[in-house]
Formats: sequence, C-alpha cells, structure tokens
Amino acid sequence: MELPDSITDVVDFLSRLPGVGNKSATRQTLALMKWPLEDIRRFGSLIEGLSRVRTCEKCSFFCEADLCTLCTDKERASRRELCVVENVVDLLAIEKSGEYRGPYHILGAVLNPLLGVGPEELGLGSMAQRIGEEGIESIIVAVNPSVEGDATASYIREILPGEVKVERIGFGIPIGGALEYLDSMTITKALENRKRM
Amino acid sequence: MELPDSITDVVDFLSRLPGVGNKSATRQTLALMKWPLEDIRRFGSLIEGLSRVRTCEKCSFFCEADLCTLCTDKERASRRELCVVENVVDLLAIEKSGEYRGPYHILGAVLNPLLGVGPEELGLGSMAQRIGEEGIESIIVAVNPSVEGDATASYIREILPGEVKVERIGFGIPIGGALEYLDSMTITKALENRKRM
Repeated sequence: MELPDSITDVVDFLSRLPGVGNKSATRQTLALMKWPLEDIRRFGSLIEGLSRVRTCEKCSFFCEADLCTLCTDKERASRRELCVVENVVDLLAIEKSGEYRGPYHILGAVLNPLLGVGPEELGLGSMAQRIGEEGIESIIVAVNPSVEGDATASYIREILPGEVKVERIGFGIPIGGALEYLDSMTITKALENRKRM
Repeated sequence: MELPDSITDVVDFLSRLPGVGNKSATRQTLALMKWPLEDIRRFGSLIEGLSRVRTCEKCSFFCEADLCTLCTDKERASRRELCVVENVVDLLAIEKSGEYRGPYHILGAVLNPLLGVGPEELGLGSMAQRIGEEGIESIIVAVNPSVEGDATASYIREILPGEVKVERIGFGIPIGGALEYLDSMTITKALENRKRM
C-alpha cells in the first residue's frame, strides 16, 4: 500500500531540495495538504512562476526585467565600484551587512579546471569589458577563501588594467570566534591582516 | 535590497512547512531555481494538484475516487477486521510493518475536550455504523498512548456492541530500546504486558 501518485510525486520533488530526506518530505507534503485549498494552489503557481524569473544581463542577479533592481539603481552605479561574488547567497550576505552599497557581479562559480570551469565559463572577459565601459575604479573580490577562490581572485587581478584597484575581502578571526577553536590557517591569515590600533 | 517578490513568496510558503526555517527555505528556493525549467513547472503543477486530492468516504485515507485503494481492496474487506488510527502517517507506519493487512479507519484526531474535539467531531458514530454494516468482528485501536488516546480507545470500546472484539495495540519496550533509558511509564506497561515464554 502506498500513498496516491499525486502525493508521492510531490514527496519525490520535495526530497530533491537540500536538507530534505524522504521522511521529512512525506511529513511536509502531508502538512501542506492541511493548508487551505487556496494556499496550496497559490504555492503551486508561485513555484511554477519561478521558471519565469530571469537573470540580470549585467550582473546575473535575479530580476523580472532585462536588468535587476541593483543595476538600475543610479546611486549604486554612480559609486564606480563593483563587488564580485560567487553566488546569490553571498550577495545577500554582503547586502545584509549594510557595509557595501555599490553594484555587484555574480560569477556563478569559481575557477575550477577539474570541473571544467575556466575563465570563459565564468564570463570573466565580459566582466572585464563591463568594468571598462562603466568606468569602475575599484573592485572588491568577495569570493570565499579556498584554492579555487584564490586562483579566481588572482586571475581577476591579472586581466584588469593596473589602474583599477582590486581588493580581496579581508580574512581573519570572525566576530564571536575564539582563537582556541579556529584552524591555524585562519590564525595565520589573521596575523597577516593585523591592524595598528 | 531584497530578492524579487516571486522568489520571496515561495520562500514564505516553504518556511510554513514543518522543520523549515526562513534560512533553509531561501537555500531550498535558490536550489530549486537551478533545476531544469521543465521540472520547476512540473513541481508547481503537482503541488497545485494536491488541492484536488480527495479523502475516502469510508476511511478518510487519501484517494483519487470516492473510495481509496484500501477500501476497494476486496481481500482486505473480506477480513472483517478494522484498524483504527489517528492519522495518515500512523496508517503508513503500520502498513510498513507488513503485519496487518485489513482495512483502516482514520479518525483525524483523538478525543480532546480542551480543543473541542468530541465524539461527533471524530465521526465515531458513523464509524460504529460502518462497523455494523460491514460485519466487522475485530478491531485494533492503534492510537498513541496518551491520556487522549486512552480516552478515545475506551470510548470506542463503549459504543461498540459487546460481540465486537476491540483490542488496543500493545505497549512495551521498543525493539532496540534499553531499559536504562526508558521512562517508568513504559516499563510499567511492559511489565503489565509480559508474556509467558
């Protein structure tokens, strides 16, 4: 005995989401079926609607027109700076800090020859062109610290003209972190990045 | 800066599911958006389809016709027994054990005067009628052990004619359980339910 197909199909799709196993997907589907019918229908059509969400021609952020709200924001564009991130969640994390208020560029990945991700796959050429056209003077490379992230940052520095200031986001002890529990690589970076008080 | 509405709306709905917070819902929505467009559309329409799933007129299990596959199964019906459960997940758990192969009756809840759930809300009258009409001779009350579950079981025993055998699912030490870690209520029940070897 099994649940009807119309239910197990939803369970199968839900369990494809990160962090959802078959058991939680079943529980979630059964919970969902207790919602008001109107909500179930709306949830379904909203998900279908996701297939119509586009990505910005300039920075690859999600948008509903050709350009996203970040790229059409004149105040951001006037800053002549650019923050390069790996993906949307990283962009959201930076936005949440409220510390940076300029435009972004989402790479979608970092250089990874083993996975066949080279400069062309990342569109680094068109990024360099964009930087030239928009007269961007300063760049923050906010990719995560890893071999691939480091290579991506170095490559970006290399292909851009010398007059463009390229900076990498700072590495060190996170706020609330304890030296005792941090790995030695983080401590090394933190010592390198020490600041005069 | 925020994600477009079409995305945050999905995040809001996803975070209404049990065990999903705002952060996982965001992560899941962004993961979902990387699926093939065809899959996103299909997932959406499958969820909309859940609003059309019906419940069996007899036992309240999910079905696509008037009666569910359990109630239309002649072999099950011929057994003249009935397993009374609180909800669909309990039914699925019993089915998974493979130990019971008869028809079911889903109450949807247990008696709970504080929440306004009385015998009428549970449809216990129509259940008793069903039992009479189908000539059911033996009933397993498989509701969870709790004050409300106990009351429900007693009530069911009371409203059914004396010739119908009503049994409660057995309580005791779960397989793999250790006496050391079990509560004294379970140990009490296990001692009561001891069996001659």
